[in-house]
Amino acid sequence: LNTLIQYIKFCWIMFSRHSYLVVPTQTSVVNFPASMSPPSTAVVYDQHGPPDTVTRVTKIPPVEMNENEVCVKMLAAPINPADINRIEGVYPVLPPTPTIGGWEGVGEIHSVGSAVMAFFPGDLVIHAAYLSGTWQTYVVEDQSLWYKIDKNTPIEYAATISVNPLSALRMLEDFVALKSGDTIVQNGATSIVGQCVIQLARIRGIHSINIIRDKPESDKIKEKLIKLGANKVFTESELEVKGVKNLLGDIPKPSLGLNCIGGNAANMVAKFLKQGGTMVTYGGMSKKPITISTPYFIFKDISLKGYLLQEKNLDEAQYRCSIDHLLALVRAGILQYEMEMVPFKDFHVALEKAMGKQGSQRKQILKF
Amino acid sequence: LNTLIQYIKFCWIMFSRHSYLVVPTQTSVVNFPASMSPPSTAVVYDQHGPPDTVTRVTKIPPVEMNENEVCVKMLAAPINPADINRIEGVYPVLPPTPTIGGWEGVGEIHSVGSAVMAFFPGDLVIHAAYLSGTWQTYVVEDQSLWYKIDKNTPIEYAATISVNPLSALRMLEDFVALKSGDTIVQNGATSIVGQCVIQLARIRGIHSINIIRDKPESDKIKEKLIKLGANKVFTESELEVKGVKNLLGDIPKPSLGLNCIGGNAANMVAKFLKQGGTMVTYGGMSKKPITISTPYFIFKDISLKGYLLQEKNLDEAQYRCSIDHLLALVRAGILQYEMEMVPFKDFHVALEKAMGKQGSQRKQILKF
Repeated sequence: LNTLIQYIKFCWIMFSRHSYLVVPTQTSVVNFPASMSPPSTAVVYDQHGPPDTVTRVTKIPPVEMNENEVCVKMLAAPINPADINRIEGVYPVLPPTPTIGGWEGVGEIHSVGSAVMAFFPGDLVIHAAYLSGTWQTYVVEDQSLWYKIDKNTPIEYAATISVNPLSALRMLEDFVALKSGDTIVQNGATSIVGQCVIQLARIRGIHSINIIRDKPESDKIKEKLIKLGANKVFTESELEVKGVKNLLGDIPKPSLGLNCIGGNAANMVAKFLKQGGTMVTYGGMSKKPITISTPYFIFKDISLKGYLLQEKNLDEAQYRCSIDHLLALVRAGILQYEMEMVPFKDFHVALEKAMGKQGSQRKQILKF
Repeated sequence: LNTLIQYIKFCWIMFSRHSYLVVPTQTSVVNFPASMSPPSTAVVYDQHGPPDTVTRVTKIPPVEMNENEVCVKMLAAPINPADINRIEGVYPVLPPTPTIGGWEGVGEIHSVGSAVMAFFPGDLVIHAAYLSGTWQTYVVEDQSLWYKIDKNTPIEYAATISVNPLSALRMLEDFVALKSGDTIVQNGATSIVGQCVIQLARIRGIHSINIIRDKPESDKIKEKLIKLGANKVFTESELEVKGVKNLLGDIPKPSLGLNCIGGNAANMVAKFLKQGGTMVTYGGMSKKPITISTPYFIFKDISLKGYLLQEKNLDEAQYRCSIDHLLALVRAGILQYEMEMVPFKDFHVALEKAMGKQGSQRKQILKF
């Protein structure tokens, strides 16, 4: 709760600094003093509702920077499902409106306040806190909210590392003490989190059992996930059997399960778990409640827990260490996932795709 | 798993000792030497199936006692739901058949082996382990399986203390560090476990929120539970509201929930839980899987766990301390629940009642 309160306070403070979200009737070209940011172009919403209706791309006048602030020229920012939920107003913690969308992203330092020592113009930086406002061309914020990363990082990965891959890493680290040779099981294996889980498990010598939805192209999807490092991939219908032990071959039963689907797909994860195993829920893509057989609790002694990135993310040292680790894996070419870069001017096309209005699509990354 | 294996071995050993479960064609009256038990009358089943069909009451010939064994003249033993499930063969760990039914009970020491120092004829004793064989007039077992209790204990409580009340106590103690002023929530509040939870919570100054099924006599049931010490009692239909906070008045939200029903009744328990709360499942009376809203995991960070008495019960010192505490409360008149004593000769009538074939009935206690 404290975390949430701090977060709301934080949002409120940041909002106060940007509260003059009015479109200037006319913007004349002038030279800005060093303590002012350039004008910005931003995705703003004035109220919660359908994201394609309530969001508008608008100009933001220059902001005066204080001595501890940096001005970041944004390079890329994704449209995540949680961003959409926040605009819809169906997320439990929401910044006051009007506000600017986007909760993660990468940029380069454009200018710094007089007391800023740790950053220099040209540094590549990502958001160090989960605060809205990355869907704009220039952001002015306190330096503590930004984290400097290696300049050789591909910007589409830098823009997306701190939500999905970080969740995958923390879920593999924070619930069960896994060691090489152990097994995990997950549903929603084709999501970016799912793909990262497969690869991060493989890197640690951990087997992964992956559950996907039944689709005409299931065989192709299986092949792709196996190529990423998956040990087993099953469609939901393949798991409509009495016991699953025979499906595992030499692989031990999993001690950790990850669920982002809900409904019966959650029960399938629980079905694989070994005695005393833990299932972690981090999403509910089916929009159905989690359904689990009672005997799994009583006779198999499983535990169910939940994961939310924001709250797990508060230890700054651990956050930075995790990000550095993940980006090193990206630069080494052993952590990969598919994305689509879209010019910022096509924001509403990218938003439609991210909302699933054009069927299943790759993650949409706004390029500024 | 080790626990289960040990349990199976245990059952097997005990079974071996009693493996001549044949009805003698003719039993002549003889004097038995001190090292032999008297003949016993027992409820035996040769195979798993409908309990009223597969069980038969039969004579067991005298058993030779070894030096560490005691012979217990049974006084009373309940018919618990788990006993019925074991006879049906729908329990995960089952003794080999043919075997004698009944997993808890009270008796008095009839005779002891030559090396037994801790027990004397006339001592009141209860089963210290969960092993079948209490539905018979005389039991011969190793002395370590019996626990001596205060002779002033009402036998119907002594016979039933080690399954339902012990589960209630352990669930209040072993999952969440509760303190006076805290709150718990449970469904199935009218069961004996439920009634014990209410009373044990009240004794510790812990509030209880209780959920009961909708029935014509709901008001009477509410009154009865309030009299036991319940702070709030709601029918399931009364909880079909958006938020439950307003229903609680001054009572804080619960940190522990207990579920023995499953289905949506489990979600109602989760609905009450505070941020970070834990729900423990110990039964599934509705025979429906547990259904829980996904956001409770992600945004309310609840955990789900399971409880099975057998496994929790292995620390002997804790077991004995818990039993003594519960029986002291019984003798003090502050832990009560309703039972029906039935003469052993009417076993099949009691079994029918325990199986619910005559509607809702009090707990059936066989009196030998």
